[in-house]
Amino acid sequence: MSDEASRVALLERAFGRAPRGVLCGIGDDAAVLAPGRDRLVWTVDVQVEGVHFQRSWLGLDALGYRSVMAAASDLAAMGARPRAVLSGLVLPPGFSDAELGALARGQARACRELGTAVVGGNLARGGELSVTTSVLGHAARPLLRRGARPGDGVWVAGTTGLAAAGLAWLARAGGAARVPVALRAAVAAWQRPVARIDAGALVARRAHAAIDLSDGLAIDLARLARASGVVVVLAEEALVTEALTRAARALAARGVAASALELALHGGEDYALVAVLPARGTPAGLAAAGFRCIGSCEPRAPRGASPLVLVARTGTRRPLAARGFDHFARGGARARAVS
Amino acid sequence: MSDEASRVALLERAFGRAPRGVLCGIGDDAAVLAPGRDRLVWTVDVQVEGVHFQRSWLGLDALGYRSVMAAASDLAAMGARPRAVLSGLVLPPGFSDAELGALARGQARACRELGTAVVGGNLARGGELSVTTSVLGHAARPLLRRGARPGDGVWVAGTTGLAAAGLAWLARAGGAARVPVALRAAVAAWQRPVARIDAGALVARRAHAAIDLSDGLAIDLARLARASGVVVVLAEEALVTEALTRAARALAARGVAASALELALHGGEDYALVAVLPARGTPAGLAAAGFRCIGSCEPRAPRGASPLVLVARTGTRRPLAARGFDHFARGGARARAVS
Repeated sequence: MSDEASRVALLERAFGRAPRGVLCGIGDDAAVLAPGRDRLVWTVDVQVEGVHFQRSWLGLDALGYRSVMAAASDLAAMGARPRAVLSGLVLPPGFSDAELGALARGQARACRELGTAVVGGNLARGGELSVTTSVLGHAARPLLRRGARPGDGVWVAGTTGLAAAGLAWLARAGGAARVPVALRAAVAAWQRPVARIDAGALVARRAHAAIDLSDGLAIDLARLARASGVVVVLAEEALVTEALTRAARALAARGVAASALELALHGGEDYALVAVLPARGTPAGLAAAGFRCIGSCEPRAPRGASPLVLVARTGTRRPLAARGFDHFARGGARARAVS
Repeated sequence: MSDEASRVALLERAFGRAPRGVLCGIGDDAAVLAPGRDRLVWTVDVQVEGVHFQRSWLGLDALGYRSVMAAASDLAAMGARPRAVLSGLVLPPGFSDAELGALARGQARACRELGTAVVGGNLARGGELSVTTSVLGHAARPLLRRGARPGDGVWVAGTTGLAAAGLAWLARAGGAARVPVALRAAVAAWQRPVARIDAGALVARRAHAAIDLSDGLAIDLARLARASGVVVVLAEEALVTEALTRAARALAARGVAASALELALHGGEDYALVAVLPARGTPAGLAAAGFRCIGSCEPRAPRGASPLVLVARTGTRRPLAARGFDHFARGGARARAVS
């Protein structure tokens, strides 16, 4: 293990040149950026070994990639574009320079795909590996969770439940086993999520509200519904995709009981983007950008009623529990729970 | 232990209202800020239990306070003022709501003293407690490490070595013992550092370069000297203060061998502010703001020579090793090493 200066030099090489508008990057006390005209949109996300991931479930390169994408997904949900990234790494004893290089390459690759770069951060030792990612971005008109109105359509770009199916398989198989064909898309959804920056930018001017799906469709949409004061009505037939049905069947064949609908409603970490759009004047290119309509908004529910309703294929309506991943609920370690 | 929603509500209460210019704080996917006219100055710092601190050495309130101050100190070193703070917490099993409340109150208190607030963050479970703090600030003309010129004076605001003396005592005594009078200032320097935002703002227009002392005077000033292409010449008599001499003697009486000069040169975590100022036109109020002159800059050293020189009380000059705390050097766990 080398000293801090040589590790910082290794990271500088991996992260490359600072993007436009970044006046001072790695190597000073802090990063310096030009202010720009747009509003600033700023988030932080933490990924901890043993809680959010096991190293047997994904390579360090994929961990770096996933950490950046998970953090940047919060910006997509505001219709914002990332300007720069700070990376806070806690490295356990014995973590080698080669391992640090792989982690940094994954972070750099995700940044390149998003048109940004890591411009600074912090290195520290610790007992367990963790990756903290702060992303600073900009938006002319950031989308909030509040703002959805009765009559609006609820659109999603990305998978719902597929990442949880992939995670369930990795947790079951331990990461070393070969991934069955029926579960490849699911494992990829968990290992390599994508922050839907372009999709967010596409709807930024028209959407009334937006959120990204990190903890699960039901719990995240309940947050949006409550913040907006509406009821979100979801169509079961729009949620249960073919890929998800295949994955759920493949899991069941391996002793993991999880219905496709349960996965779609309560599985987290897809980092799909939900945008709530007025029924009239839906932006062109919505389907081309990967959006599909999964429901609509109705007036606020009576006090105490669930802000979420599911319409089954039969047409029956039932209220939905706003549960999903919860880091602090009993037994709710994200890396162990499927839903 | 309660669920995530109630913990977020607890944090919202502790952190209070968002400061001016923050358009959206806790409770959405990301924080939203008005851009402002100044340049943005942005940093992240991580404090890990067992590496940067032991819980027996300081209360959780003090940990929260110290985490914010340590991170904001990077902004002081750029002559910047903080606008907002994001907090990423990793909480070990059994961490109670009362403990979370104490930690958050300390963060909120430090923010109030700095004229800012926590406006968002991330909660996660983990095996060990860690506090990641990202601070976003602004400066019309950020000070860098490069820019020092031969003939400039080297000024410091804050203690040098005192925090390391306090840490050495805490590590020795385990935190439970009563602090001897001669070490009270030292323990306070380690437990309750202050980000010198006002001092940084005072010199921001005149200073050629600046840095904060986190890893130790020698290693941090060597960074500034190398970035600027100068030699920094330090006066021993200016470094060894009375308080430090008293603390070193009290440590020696308790079996911890550390000379006052060693502590001043190689002890870290004082978060003092070093500003390099031209000899002419030193800003008024420098002494009143706590600055004292500790040396000066000379032309670049020959290749391979140390960029640091110490002038002893006798007038003898000797090159200084640029060592200090290093998280990755052998045996260099910050919470265990004195220098």
